[in-house]
Parts: sequence; structure tokens; C-alpha cells
Amino acid sequence: MSRRSGPTAGASLPYSAAARRLADLGRRFYARGWMLGTSGNLSAVVARDPLKLAITRSSVPKGALTPADVLEVNADGAATRRGPGRPSAETQLHCVIARDRGAGAVLHTHSVWSTILSERHANDGGLTIAGYEMLKGLAGVTSHEQREFVPILDNDQDMTRLGRRVSAVLDEHHGAHALLLRRHGLYTWGETLDDAERHVEIVEFLLEVIGREHHGATV
Amino acid sequence: MSRRSGPTAGASLPYSAAARRLADLGRRFYARGWMLGTSGNLSAVVARDPLKLAITRSSVPKGALTPADVLEVNADGAATRRGPGRPSAETQLHCVIARDRGAGAVLHTHSVWSTILSERHANDGGLTIAGYEMLKGLAGVTSHEQREFVPILDNDQDMTRLGRRVSAVLDEHHGAHALLLRRHGLYTWGETLDDAERHVEIVEFLLEVIGREHHGATV
Amino acid sequence: MSRRSGPTAGASLPYSAAARRLADLGRRFYARGWMLGTSGNLSAVVARDPLKLAITRSSVPKGALTPADVLEVNADGAATRRGPGRPSAETQLHCVIARDRGAGAVLHTHSVWSTILSERHANDGGLTIAGYEMLKGLAGVTSHEQREFVPILDNDQDMTRLGRRVSAVLDEHHGAHALLLRRHGLYTWGETLDDAERHVEIVEFLLEVIGREHHGATV
Amino acid sequence: MSRRSGPTAGASLPYSAAARRLADLGRRFYARGWMLGTSGNLSAVVARDPLKLAITRSSVPKGALTPADVLEVNADGAATRRGPGRPSAETQLHCVIARDRGAGAVLHTHSVWSTILSERHANDGGLTIAGYEMLKGLAGVTSHEQREFVPILDNDQDMTRLGRRVSAVLDEHHGAHALLLRRHGLYTWGETLDDAERHVEIVEFLLEVIGREHHGATV
Repeated sequence: MSRRSGPTAGASLPYSAAARRLADLGRRFYARGWMLGTSGNLSAVVARDPLKLAITRSSVPKGALTPADVLEVNADGAATRRGPGRPSAETQLHCVIARDRGAGAVLHTHSVWSTILSERHANDGGLTIAGYEMLKGLAGVTSHEQREFVPILDNDQDMTRLGRRVSAVLDEHHGAHALLLRRHGLYTWGETLDDAERHVEIVEFLLEVIGREHHGATV
Repeated sequence: MSRRSGPTAGASLPYSAAARRLADLGRRFYARGWMLGTSGNLSAVVARDPLKLAITRSSVPKGALTPADVLEVNADGAATRRGPGRPSAETQLHCVIARDRGAGAVLHTHSVWSTILSERHANDGGLTIAGYEMLKGLAGVTSHEQREFVPILDNDQDMTRLGRRVSAVLDEHHGAHALLLRRHGLYTWGETLDDAERHVEIVEFLLEVIGREHHGATV
Repeated sequence: MSRRSGPTAGASLPYSAAARRLADLGRRFYARGWMLGTSGNLSAVVARDPLKLAITRSSVPKGALTPADVLEVNADGAATRRGPGRPSAETQLHCVIARDRGAGAVLHTHSVWSTILSERHANDGGLTIAGYEMLKGLAGVTSHEQREFVPILDNDQDMTRLGRRVSAVLDEHHGAHALLLRRHGLYTWGETLDDAERHVEIVEFLLEVIGREHHGATV
Repeated sequence: MSRRSGPTAGASLPYSAAARRLADLGRRFYARGWMLGTSGNLSAVVARDPLKLAITRSSVPKGALTPADVLEVNADGAATRRGPGRPSAETQLHCVIARDRGAGAVLHTHSVWSTILSERHANDGGLTIAGYEMLKGLAGVTSHEQREFVPILDNDQDMTRLGRRVSAVLDEHHGAHALLLRRHGLYTWGETLDDAERHVEIVEFLLEVIGREHHGATV
């Protein structure tokens, strides 16, 4: 399996730095309307062997996110540090992606356009983004002629089952930098937290362009 | 009557804390474009028995809201502390919702998308939102398969009459987390002010998704 | 002539307070995208008899507006204090409105939606806004059943001629709170600067609602 | 060749002032969503003879841009000061524009609307913007009756070839204030950095108006 968007061993950050940076990122994505309410989860790898992630805890409003709202979990998604709150149910998806992609960070946001496009293209199993210069901001992409396929998976409240499907999709689409959960939101990742943050911004930008172009297509 | 979105006795806050938090919330909702001009009202329960609410006073620009712009009213909507200004005419609706839902906070915003959808779906008496992960942010909702009905009421300048209609609608739709006044705006509430704030963000997000999907439906 | 939206003698502010508040207002409207580049002009009456206005000077970027970017002009639009820069060509329109409406402040913004609607409804000579609760934020309006007519005038680079047409339109539509210049932008005013600011927010909100509803009307 | 939008010798800034101002500009354009991820490049002329530019270095996230993220390059796009990072591949386009237009600053942004319109009008070789008051913010334009042609060039990863095409287009459309690269973004420039910044805001505003009007045209 090729891992174009994340090497076998992505970066890892000390826990306190990861917590601080995830909190900052959450507040900024919230400001853009990508993490309204308590939606979304952000994680960064803090140890590789065995795998440990810093991840935002469940049900925290992202507009006021602080480092104290971040937990440490192991590869099974169980908390490994004492503290209030519990890991999000979706922690398992973060663990699957960090493991299968060797990602250093996994970011999950809920935006208006990702929600709309995840429904519009659901029956095609995904969405191809091609011909945009902005694609060059994705790790390893060197030309706007890139054909980037963003898989769309049906939403599911059973995280073990959904985790297996995510793993299968990552394996099938080994060049993918992101995936959408239907009527739910975006997952993207990167070798470092900087890469993953850039991927969120690029994919969100491109989904908005495609979403709005589609409206214009009526004429 | 079941009260899934607010128990019989929601939280209450000390008056000064409520005033401070409502002022902060007003400035943030204004920044998002949900309380432009002097539109909207925010309230939080400060005593339960008898009921007292802290509520923003009438005709105050929300972009510069301070704790001094918050009044205390009783269950009839009459001011119970000395100070400048008068309670908003819509105070009665806040009292009805706080009483009937046992809510700890009632928030009323005017957004572009809630205004548009309150008109588009008025003849159906409301709008069903179903299948979105974001619904899980509403109190007591555990799956995206939730079918959330948002009742729409015709607007009215007679607040006593409108209050009775709101009460009847809350009773009929005992699972509702929010309602729309036609060409007017959104009312939502929660057991705590945090819950109510989250409900505003979630409902606004979902209305924007539905509003924009509709446009795309032309193709 | 009735003057429902501004009495014969609106408020006036000391010059230094007016300059400070106009600069602050310009930066905030710029942040909302209503005064991009150097577009728009803001004025407030600083003396009534004879009329003097504080007004933003020509060609100043509004995102960095300071009190030093404000000039004082007389009823003919001529500068009455020493200082750099010259009054905007559109100063004459501000003077006409301040005089004819007895307004204490006149605000002119360029937004995306006012530009679009000023073209879409140009052949009707204006646009009626009716049935929205938000209308109650306009001075003297007490019900959402208000039918607010916003006149649209063809754009013109000859300010003396345009000033006469503005004056005629204000006289014909004595209840109007705002007018649009075609493919140009919004003029609104108020008895005080607070009123005028609120009018900008309300009219911009309603134009956005109407602009977006129109799109949805295809279905 | 006439150079209506930039004289033979535009302004130049000391390097440290240029670096500081470009960093500030990048963060503000990022906040508006015009430079998401690492997209876009900003430059200002720091010496005329021989030509030297301060330019943002390649692959820097614009939301956290600092003066240390700015490089100095010569007319061939080669770095002329020691420091980390390398010039962007698109530096050559900045040099071509600074030289051919005598511009003091060249700004390249990626917005949603410029991307959409660069595709929609690609087959016409460009887009005419006419009749908008906002056009008067472009250098040398004195009436809304201006017919501003914005050329659109196919995107290309070969910067030497693309630079020659840009040069030819600037020569053919000697009155142009901006150009679009297809599915890529906007280039604009000005005699000073202030002029160029204003041109970005004006062109982005007008593209958004035209993009949204087009949607409405279905009715």
C-alpha cells in the first residue's frame, strides 16, 4: 500500500504542545463556522509505538476550547491520563486513520458545504476534484491536473463498524487525502498538524467552489 | 407531557453572572450576523420559584451589549429591578418557554436563513430536519436518524395571543428543541445557557445547509 | 412634507466625537465587507444652523479609518477646517439628505447584495420590503406589516444633478428610510448616528434575505 | 504601450517595511478566505534599478505570516538575501508584472469567486466588468461607465512559458488592472502597495457581485 499523503511514521508532538495547538485550532475553525456547537474532533499523535493521540474530549464547545479539553488516548481509543470528560465516540476513527495512514494529525470538521456535497455525491461513492491550482497544497501533489477522489461513506453510529469501513476505504483509495461522512462532515489528516490544518482549508475551499459552481450550472 | 429538551427545573444562574454571559453572547451572535441592529432577545433564568429571568432590554444594539443592558423580570414579564429601559415586548414569549419547557435559558435570534426558511415552509406549519449528524448536538438526541420537527408560527404583534399559540405549539410538539416565527426568526432554549447557545448554533447550521441544498436542487 | 424617519432637527455631535465614531463605524462596516477598498462615505451633523457635517474624506481605505480621515464641511460640501485631503464628490448627497430629512447622520455603503438588488429592481424604480419583523428596527415602524419602499435611482457622476434627483425622490417617498443608487450602493440616515447605523444593518439584512430568497424561487 | 494602471516607475519600499506590510496583508486576506492554506503570493518592489522584490516565500501558511516569511529576489526571481526557504515558483510572474506594468506591488490571491468566474468565462478569454460605481476605485478610472476587461489565461505549471503569456496579455490589454489564471486565482497590481491592496478588494467585490447575479439570472 502506497501512502502518498502520510508516511509510515508521521510526526509526533509532546502532549502539552499538542493540547495547546489543538485548542487554538478548534477556536479558529469554530470562528470560520466549521465546528459550530460541539461538532468535530481534532487529534494529534503524541507517541508512535505504542500509538497515543491527544484528542479533544466529547461534547466540548469548540469556540471556547482550552488545552484542558484535550485528552490522551491509546490505539483503542481509551483514555490514558486522568482528567475530566471522556473521549469522543469518534476517537476510534481518528485511531484508524492515524494507524493506517501513519498520520501525525487527524482533523474532523463539520461545514455547510461538506455536509451538502456529502449528500449530493453520496450515490457516486465520492467526489472527484480536478483541475484546480489549490490542489497543489495537498501533500505530494505537484500539478493542478491532479484528480483527487474524496470518498463518501454512509454515516453510522456504530464506530467499530464505521472504523472498519474507513480502513477499507483508505486501503482502496490509497492516494486520498480526505474523506466525507454522509450528511456529517470531513475527515482529513497529514504527516504533521500543519499539513492536516492546510488540508482542511484546501478541501473546504474546493468544496465551496464546487458547491457554488453547481448552482451556477443552472444557467 | 414529556420534556425531552428541558427538564421541569432547568438550571438557574445568579443575576450578575447571567447578565455578563448574555451580554457576551449577544456580541458574539451579532458578529455572526444573527442579531443585527437591535434584533433578537436573550434570557436566562435567575430564580425558579417564583420564576425570574434576566433578559436583554428592548431596542439595544447587540454589537455593543453590556451587562447594564440586561433587566430582571418576573413570570409576567414585568421588570423587578430598578434600572433604565424596559423589557422587550417579546419578554412574554421567553417567560412562556421558560415555564412550559422548564428551560434555564431562551435565545431568540434573527438570521438570514431562519428568515428565509420560516417563509418557505410556512404553509406546512413547520420543517422537518432529518439525517444529519449535527442533530446529535441537540439535548437528548443520540442518532443522526432523529427526525426533528421545527414548528413555524405566523408572526403577530399581540404578544399575549402569540404567547398562547407558542404554548399550544410546545405542548403539541413536545420533542421540539426550537421554533420559528414566520419572517421573523428563531427561538430555541435549553436546560442551561450552554445548551441553549449550542442549540442556536446547531439549528442555524442546519437551516443554512437546508437553505443552500434547496438552491442546488434546481439541477 | 412628513418626515417619519427623521425630524426637522436631528441630533448633532461635537466634531471630535463625530470623527471618532465615524472612524470606528467605517472599520466595522469594512470588516463586514460593506466598505471594501475606498468605497462609501459616512457623515454626522456637527452643527445645525448653519448646517455642518463631519464626513469621511475622499479615497480613504475604510479598513484603516482614523479620526484624521474625517473632514468638516458646510451645507455646500466645502471643507470648513484646515487639513489634508478633500471632501468626497458625494458629499453633496450627504448634505441634501441631512437637510431634507433633518437627519443627524447619513451613511453610504457598498455591499454585494445592495449592488445586486439595485440592478434587479431598477426598472421598477425601487423595491418594496414587506412582512418582515426586522422592519420594526426602522425608526417609527411598529409592525412587520410595514410596506417599506426603497427607491432606486440611476447612478450619475454629476453630483449636482444627482443631488436634485435625490431631493425629489425624498420628497416623493416621504416615508422612505433608505435609497439605492443603481449598481452603486445604499444610502440611509437617521435622527442620530445610532439610528443610522441600525438602519444600515437592517436594510442590508433584508436585502440579503430578499436576494437569497429570489434564488430559491426557481424551485 | 500605455500604462494606465501603473506608471513606468511605481513606488518602492525599504525591504523591512515591505516585509512587515506584506505579512500584515497576508494575514488579513487569509482572514477573508482569499489566501487559505498556503495559497497566493504577495510582493512589493524594494529597488527599481536593478529590479528587486520582497516576496512571500513558497509554502507558507498565510494565516500566520510574519516578516521572516518574506524573501528578497532579483528580476530573474532568484533570492538575493540569505535566509530560510525558497521563492515561490510563481515569483517569475510577479517579476514580469512588476517590470511590464512598472508596478510597485503585485498581489496574487485565491478566492472562491475568482476561481468560479475564471472557469465560467474561460472560453471567452476574459470577463468584462462594466457599469459599477466600484470600478472607480481602480487607478485612473473616473466613471462607473468604465468597461474593465479582466483577461483569463489557462493555468500552467511551466512558469517561464506562463510568464511569456502573461507578458503578451498585459501588452494586448494595456488598460487591464487585473488578470485571472483559470481555476487558479487573481493577479492584480498597483503603483503602490495601497493601490494594489485596494485593487484586490475591488476586483474580489465585483467578481462576487457578478457571480451571485448570475445565479439570480435563472429567474
